[in-house]
Amino acid sequence: MKIRLTLEYDGANYSGWQLQAGHDSIQARLEDALARIFNAPIRVHGAGRTDAGVHARGQSAAFTLPRPFGPDVLRRALNGILPRDIAIITAAAAADDFDPRRDARSRVYEYRVLNRDRRSAFDYRHSWLLPGALDLAAMNAAARIFIGEHDFAAFRSRGSVERSTTRRVIASQWRRADEFLIYRVEATAYLRRMVRTMVAATVAAGRGRLAPAEIATILAARDRARAPAAAPAAGLYLIAVNY
Amino acid sequence: MKIRLTLEYDGANYSGWQLQAGHDSIQARLEDALARIFNAPIRVHGAGRTDAGVHARGQSAAFTLPRPFGPDVLRRALNGILPRDIAIITAAAAADDFDPRRDARSRVYEYRVLNRDRRSAFDYRHSWLLPGALDLAAMNAAARIFIGEHDFAAFRSRGSVERSTTRRVIASQWRRADEFLIYRVEATAYLRRMVRTMVAATVAAGRGRLAPAEIATILAARDRARAPAAAPAAGLYLIAVNY
Repeated sequence: MKIRLTLEYDGANYSGWQLQAGHDSIQARLEDALARIFNAPIRVHGAGRTDAGVHARGQSAAFTLPRPFGPDVLRRALNGILPRDIAIITAAAAADDFDPRRDARSRVYEYRVLNRDRRSAFDYRHSWLLPGALDLAAMNAAARIFIGEHDFAAFRSRGSVERSTTRRVIASQWRRADEFLIYRVEATAYLRRMVRTMVAATVAAGRGRLAPAEIATILAARDRARAPAAAPAAGLYLIAVNY
Repeated sequence: MKIRLTLEYDGANYSGWQLQAGHDSIQARLEDALARIFNAPIRVHGAGRTDAGVHARGQSAAFTLPRPFGPDVLRRALNGILPRDIAIITAAAAADDFDPRRDARSRVYEYRVLNRDRRSAFDYRHSWLLPGALDLAAMNAAARIFIGEHDFAAFRSRGSVERSTTRRVIASQWRRADEFLIYRVEATAYLRRMVRTMVAATVAAGRGRLAPAEIATILAARDRARAPAAAPAAGLYLIAVNY
């Protein structure tokens, strides 16, 4: 039997989701906690990698139970062992062939911009501080360009090696919430740094530095060199993985 | 000439506002930053001490300028030097006899309770996690008892040595905000741990463990032994100092 976990984490203190020798990752902490409970090595598979400093409010992960164990007792045991910046939200039985990455229909990310002049003593690891005027209508005109099925080769990190660079974006919109601007995007899947590069492009539109039409041209031309550098990791949250 | 600062800080990484040998304090960080700007030791006076782990969104502090310096340039220079969890909000010229502690008419604190079953990977250093039902009406019936001038000897840390234990509370109320319950209190001044002990008492009322009338009796009897232990520091914020 498999267990599917949904979990949240503050990514500020981690080198990302993925196990990496010599680095502290969410996956490593989770596998360590499971090894302590079951006294056996357990491999955890996540729905998607989050980069260093990126947060999650609804990451999904799964592993095979080495012996029968109640999901809710497991959730409590994990929350008792994991560091306080990683929390299991739910644990549930899943089919033996459940694959959290392959079976996901879509993933939702949010990106938080703190739009004010002075820096915050509280939010600096959880948002991108952008002083000055940002034109929300222009940002949304740019954000709408991404909706639909497109080749996003221009909107990924340089040196990526994904075979197909076509992805389908279902929703893409900015909204204002007090001093924050929040971008919400849902897509079937993403290329590496795709959300953060889309954020940077729409923010450039909001500052009047890049017209929405230019973003459409960059997307169509698959021209990575003309797309802006990715926005900082601190503002990015994996909100949900939909199955 | 003096400069008055208003500042915010995330208290999670500090042993409190007050300078303490061998400990990292907000005051020490501020005095260090000023010493680097002016190349001279500068003593900073705060409006009030906050304990280890307590946060501020509007602490006040003042110091004497060793030489003329524009307040706004000073604000920017300080924000460029201070760690990212301490931020200067405003810097303004103040009278030579300005005393941020003595001249304060009132101080506003807030206390954040996260009222849900599961812990948060994001808020654990910035709130008190309280699962289970909390009766907001009972909490406010208890909170109202504190309004007015009272002898708060029962609501301070054991072993305190303040001469007068009478303080005047101007406002005292709980409100709900999503999954949070937030207590806001304004008083002329406070005894040590007074807010956190009031929070613990009103929370006990919200859980049905202490009737509001019993809280009135404890207050009138000045009976420290019958008041509950102080609530955790993590939930407490100094919001504003009024002059």
